[in-house]
Amino acid sequence: MSEAFELFTDQWSPKAIARMNDYVVKLVRVEGEFVWHAHDDTDELFLVLEGTLVIDIDGEDAIELSTGDLFVVPAGVSHRPRAEREARVLLLEPSGVVNTGDATTTDLTSAVEWLV
Amino acid sequence: MSEAFELFTDQWSPKAIARMNDYVVKLVRVEGEFVWHAHDDTDELFLVLEGTLVIDIDGEDAIELSTGDLFVVPAGVSHRPRAEREARVLLLEPSGVVNTGDATTTDLTSAVEWLV
Repeated sequence: MSEAFELFTDQWSPKAIARMNDYVVKLVRVEGEFVWHAHDDTDELFLVLEGTLVIDIDGEDAIELSTGDLFVVPAGVSHRPRAEREARVLLLEPSGVVNTGDATTTDLTSAVEWLV
Repeated sequence: MSEAFELFTDQWSPKAIARMNDYVVKLVRVEGEFVWHAHDDTDELFLVLEGTLVIDIDGEDAIELSTGDLFVVPAGVSHRPRAEREARVLLLEPSGVVNTGDATTTDLTSAVEWLV
């Protein structure tokens, strides 16, 4: 999937690359802090393809994920992804999920584009 | 996930490592040829974590996947994974999916164990 990352440079803007049943696999470049948010109706899967991703979890210890690490944020759990340096992350979510979840619409809210 | 692979050595025997909604993420070591089979009710996602995986697809060209490559076999499509040397693969399927799909039960049919 490294070639796929060469097709875009914007951060926090997930690009869909594959559909599986009613789920969508997305790639995203992340750097800095995202907004705190939750997805009330679905779990969210993060797989770090390159770099280090920290996921702050409301009321719990932050999760630090390195290249090759995978974590599922349970539905309804408020969380904030962040990365000190740019990281490359694969996301899996049902189609139609908005990246900022229940957060008030922010500049970070991004429509999902298909990469190919 | 490389540590997770150190916890087992058997091939073609997927180990569940995470649940996401009603889906299960599994890790599997593969080498040699699997059986031709299809999953009538679900797509199946393959992500190669290490090595090279070939997926023969009934009536189409075989798909060759290298480390970091991802492919979704559509529901109902007969396919046969194979690997000349051992490869490490991540699978995503709805919970309850049997690895050999609609193939007559073979020695390769494997109950999914949870790794942790």
